[in-house]
Amino acid sequence: MSKLTDVPKRILIGRALRSDRLGETLLPKRIALPVFASDPLSSVAYAPGEVLLVLSIAGVSAYHFSPWIAVAVVVLMFTVVASYRQNVHAYPSGGGDYEVATTNLGPKAGLTVASALLVDYVLTVAVSIASGIENLGSAIPFVVEHKVLCASAVIVLLTLMNLRGVKESGKLFAIPTYVFVGGVFIMIAWGAFRGLVLGDTMHAPTADYHIKAEHQGLAGFALVFLLLRAFSSGCAALTGVEAISNGVPAFRKPKSKNAATTLAMMGLLAVTMFCGIIALAMATNVRMAEHPATDLIHNGVPVGSGYVQNPVISQVAEAVFGKGSFLFILLAAATALVLFLAANTAYNGFPLLGSILAQDRYLPRQLHTRGDRLAFSNGIVLLAGAAALLVVIYGADSTRLIQLYIVGVFVSFTLSQTGMVRHWNRHLAVEKDPAKRRHMVRSRAINAFGAFFTGLVLVVVLVTKFTHGAWVALLGMCIFYATMTAIRKHYDRVAEEIAAPEGPPSDDLVRPSRVHSVVLISKIHRPTLRALAYAKLMRSDTLEALTVNVDPAETKSLREEWERRGIDVPLKVLDSPYREVTRPVIEYVKSLRKESPRDAVSVIIPEYVVGHWYEHLLHNQSALRLKGRLLFTPGVMVTSVPYQLQSSEAAKLRARKRQEWNAPGAVRRGPAVERPKESSAAKD
Amino acid sequence: MSKLTDVPKRILIGRALRSDRLGETLLPKRIALPVFASDPLSSVAYAPGEVLLVLSIAGVSAYHFSPWIAVAVVVLMFTVVASYRQNVHAYPSGGGDYEVATTNLGPKAGLTVASALLVDYVLTVAVSIASGIENLGSAIPFVVEHKVLCASAVIVLLTLMNLRGVKESGKLFAIPTYVFVGGVFIMIAWGAFRGLVLGDTMHAPTADYHIKAEHQGLAGFALVFLLLRAFSSGCAALTGVEAISNGVPAFRKPKSKNAATTLAMMGLLAVTMFCGIIALAMATNVRMAEHPATDLIHNGVPVGSGYVQNPVISQVAEAVFGKGSFLFILLAAATALVLFLAANTAYNGFPLLGSILAQDRYLPRQLHTRGDRLAFSNGIVLLAGAAALLVVIYGADSTRLIQLYIVGVFVSFTLSQTGMVRHWNRHLAVEKDPAKRRHMVRSRAINAFGAFFTGLVLVVVLVTKFTHGAWVALLGMCIFYATMTAIRKHYDRVAEEIAAPEGPPSDDLVRPSRVHSVVLISKIHRPTLRALAYAKLMRSDTLEALTVNVDPAETKSLREEWERRGIDVPLKVLDSPYREVTRPVIEYVKSLRKESPRDAVSVIIPEYVVGHWYEHLLHNQSALRLKGRLLFTPGVMVTSVPYQLQSSEAAKLRARKRQEWNAPGAVRRGPAVERPKESSAAKD
Repeated sequence: MSKLTDVPKRILIGRALRSDRLGETLLPKRIALPVFASDPLSSVAYAPGEVLLVLSIAGVSAYHFSPWIAVAVVVLMFTVVASYRQNVHAYPSGGGDYEVATTNLGPKAGLTVASALLVDYVLTVAVSIASGIENLGSAIPFVVEHKVLCASAVIVLLTLMNLRGVKESGKLFAIPTYVFVGGVFIMIAWGAFRGLVLGDTMHAPTADYHIKAEHQGLAGFALVFLLLRAFSSGCAALTGVEAISNGVPAFRKPKSKNAATTLAMMGLLAVTMFCGIIALAMATNVRMAEHPATDLIHNGVPVGSGYVQNPVISQVAEAVFGKGSFLFILLAAATALVLFLAANTAYNGFPLLGSILAQDRYLPRQLHTRGDRLAFSNGIVLLAGAAALLVVIYGADSTRLIQLYIVGVFVSFTLSQTGMVRHWNRHLAVEKDPAKRRHMVRSRAINAFGAFFTGLVLVVVLVTKFTHGAWVALLGMCIFYATMTAIRKHYDRVAEEIAAPEGPPSDDLVRPSRVHSVVLISKIHRPTLRALAYAKLMRSDTLEALTVNVDPAETKSLREEWERRGIDVPLKVLDSPYREVTRPVIEYVKSLRKESPRDAVSVIIPEYVVGHWYEHLLHNQSALRLKGRLLFTPGVMVTSVPYQLQSSEAAKLRARKRQEWNAPGAVRRGPAVERPKESSAAKD
Repeated sequence: MSKLTDVPKRILIGRALRSDRLGETLLPKRIALPVFASDPLSSVAYAPGEVLLVLSIAGVSAYHFSPWIAVAVVVLMFTVVASYRQNVHAYPSGGGDYEVATTNLGPKAGLTVASALLVDYVLTVAVSIASGIENLGSAIPFVVEHKVLCASAVIVLLTLMNLRGVKESGKLFAIPTYVFVGGVFIMIAWGAFRGLVLGDTMHAPTADYHIKAEHQGLAGFALVFLLLRAFSSGCAALTGVEAISNGVPAFRKPKSKNAATTLAMMGLLAVTMFCGIIALAMATNVRMAEHPATDLIHNGVPVGSGYVQNPVISQVAEAVFGKGSFLFILLAAATALVLFLAANTAYNGFPLLGSILAQDRYLPRQLHTRGDRLAFSNGIVLLAGAAALLVVIYGADSTRLIQLYIVGVFVSFTLSQTGMVRHWNRHLAVEKDPAKRRHMVRSRAINAFGAFFTGLVLVVVLVTKFTHGAWVALLGMCIFYATMTAIRKHYDRVAEEIAAPEGPPSDDLVRPSRVHSVVLISKIHRPTLRALAYAKLMRSDTLEALTVNVDPAETKSLREEWERRGIDVPLKVLDSPYREVTRPVIEYVKSLRKESPRDAVSVIIPEYVVGHWYEHLLHNQSALRLKGRLLFTPGVMVTSVPYQLQSSEAAKLRARKRQEWNAPGAVRRGPAVERPKESSAAKD
């Protein structure tokens, strides 16, 4: 029976894996780069397009601002990379933005960062998958014609893969990421060679389209605002940069140095690709419009709602490699795959952050247990559900989703960098060694500039994007923040209530003097005999058996059998005119407590253990209800003496299998080392 | 908080009632009649129409067979009433058909009867409500125009009333039932007076309609078959006759005699009303067709699908009292009300039968507990759901539903009467007193005739109605039968497995020699200190505290506090490289058992008790999981030491309110006397 019902689950969720197969392999830089950089590198697939798209509002002529915007993005990228290299050195334990903000700016700042990051994980999934679908769609039109359906299918697939606990292998990441990076570089090099050396004129498929400017001849403040908005969109290229700083423990030694080097490599690759794609887009006259249906003009008429605006990267690839060429298809496939991998990183990051937040009591404690399948699954399903909701609401349109995306990233950048400034201030206050001090002052300067710059960008993003969707992200952050604050408050209240006073034991902690044991009996059978035997072992001060007279005939025969077997425990019979079981027992226990308030009552309940949930419906229901009620009665302890029926073997096997399960995302987490804790927390 | 969420529930389900208000009042005959007879008496509202409807298939000329069919129904009614009078005398404890069949024919026959009755309860609700809506609709057209909607609304209303635990008062039943009976008798008398004395010609609204016979001039076998089918439909008048035999304990003394008298009165009233209505229908030329839309001709054209065929009783009332007259409206309202009351009886009977079946281990044991709100609610909801499904599928058409109805009734009639024959045989074998023997022989003859006649009708019903819907009822019976057999098998298997052997204790019942107690500790706080204090009280052979090292820093501070407080219980620390809690504990317990297999291990778990389900999500989750796993480990007992947090007060209040609830149907059940049991059953 159990075998049969397991089959569909096996197929969908996979065989349970042994925990020791998890391994604790550390990552060399060449593998760490693709593992951590699939998110930031893949953003060059959509960021350049977003820049052009916003500029197009002022007409094609505004495209000539794009190199300046690219320069601004590059400067920002170098700033952020330089800043995070300081984080990596300062927090080799893999302190993410949440920890940096909490430690240096206090719990409220930390919680703000955490809320921002949680929202960001959802958006990473939504944006990356939407963009991946659009890139795939440039090669396979069917996909882009059924965007929402295909995006949802990818979400479902990733969700099942992650519930299944697929082991993240370095190779899985390395191959598509390097193919993607290689492809983009070949495209840039070949494009430059064709354009500059061969003198070819390359035409993007939209090269002969015209754009109807929504605001022709913008100037002054309006133009600046538009350029800032374009820059905000370009900042999408920076999402995911912080990932490496969370993953330092997964690197080979010297961990911090290797992580910092990888971070620099990642930044260099990203900006080169970003600028290269922008340059090629200018050279091949790519035309992107915010509302292509009405604003993109071909042969004098708007292209209409049937038109599909392909991503810049695919338009450029078409111009450079030729439509349908092998390299074009390969690049489209690799781009989509890298974007899906980027989405997958959120599936790992979300539960990991959840476990850290749980440790700090902002989320239910049980989320903290590493590799707890149940808690992990809840996180996965929550993430997938939220992302799917966004995909459906926004029609899997990456442009509309990106409006929500960048707020969270820059909230955590800004707070994290501000925290780092505080960090150096604190260390400078005690550090005497001039060489080290010099180093710290330099680091502080970098982080201060990073905080200033990212804070500025955050303001720009908020101002330029608020009505375009940033408010949704802010709302999401507020919801997460409020929920986590409420949970923390609850835990704190409980912790205070249960805190053990120092000194002599207080009133309710005085050791009770005697214990009165009561074994509940319904019939004489193996489970009750076992319960009686165990109860006798406990040598409590008094021991009696208790039965509820629901049926006088049964009670009479029970009494007779009791005597015939010579059981040396007195049998007490409670009357129950209404055939209830729970109430008479509760009242009896209360009366015992009333007689001698300083004594404890131990209620011993024989229980059957069965293997299937439907069998469970047939047993123990009154025992369960009674236990539930007894827990509310002070001065009582409730003991279950289980009797394992044969069918319980099946459940035991299932439980064992469930436990031998392997949580995904283990590779990037590194071995289970401890985070330093600011305070010891109440635990339950 | 709890107050707020309670409000909607309070409004819908009502205030909790104290159990002692239930009272144990016994019923005088004048109240018992309406309480038990609303079901059989109300069936005269639809049975006569069904007879005419079937006859119409052979054209209006076939209507002249209707008096003969009425005679057959009357004979059957007298037979059944006479038979059940024997039941009432033989089983004064209120042995229903299920018990009579089980005791005399064995458990399989009993289970067949039970399955039939369960199906019947569902159909009583569906048919009575559908018919009630049709009767109400003859006065209020809106109701019949939205049949399914209105019928579903009545089901929902009755369901809520019954979940609410409305106390059945005799008056509630008496008034509509006596108004209904009185109304029908006034109608018959006034109709007879007008027709026979005044010589008025009364015209039913359909008097000048013609019926297109589907089979003109039927003869021979086909005619006999049709007459038998009409008779089968007329047998709908007999449904519910057996109710009194279940309710003998609710009567005043002499119980059996009063019950038998009430039964006779009920039979007399039913046949008089049935025949009177048939006679009036003939006198006023009521026309009913099976498919009125096509077969009912008015002014030469079929009436079409918009036509609503009113029930015979309302057509006759219109002819006798005049359309829209006060008496017409009153009778329509009383008829509908009595039909709804009839439906309500099923809401009481279904859980009551369920509790008897649970006592015999055919249904989960917890259904047995009298007044268990949870079990009772499940039964109510199941009944309502099944009835609503039928109402929707069959479009709340009483004619189509009745095809399913009669099978179950006659299955239980036949088996019950056969059982009674066996009963008398058994008693005759030992009875010596010639007067008593004569009495018994007479009773046996009555029951034998009853068994023969009802068996014959069962065959007729099966043959004539099988394809018209009886197969659905049979399928339902099979499903109930199979489920209950499976449940009983499970309980029997378990009972066998756990049966305590007689004589010296067998291997697994040898009292273990020592007990090793383990208190699980996560932190030092009041709950753990209380658990430690209680554990010490138990004076087990060895006592140790156990903690799982999930976080070395926390474990270190725990150890330090342990020493500082001078707790005199050794603290054992288990390592957990994967931050798991459950597995290390389980493995440790297993290792203890392996070291000394004859010892028992007592695991003591401190637990928080909170008041809200969402708080519960934040606590005890790992304790719960651990307890679940420990139950599967042999030789272990698991003790919860609860610590009641302040918020638990709310839950305590809720639980108390839940318990002070009053199960409906108590009036007809009578005081809680015991059924004689054939065998003592394993109980859990």
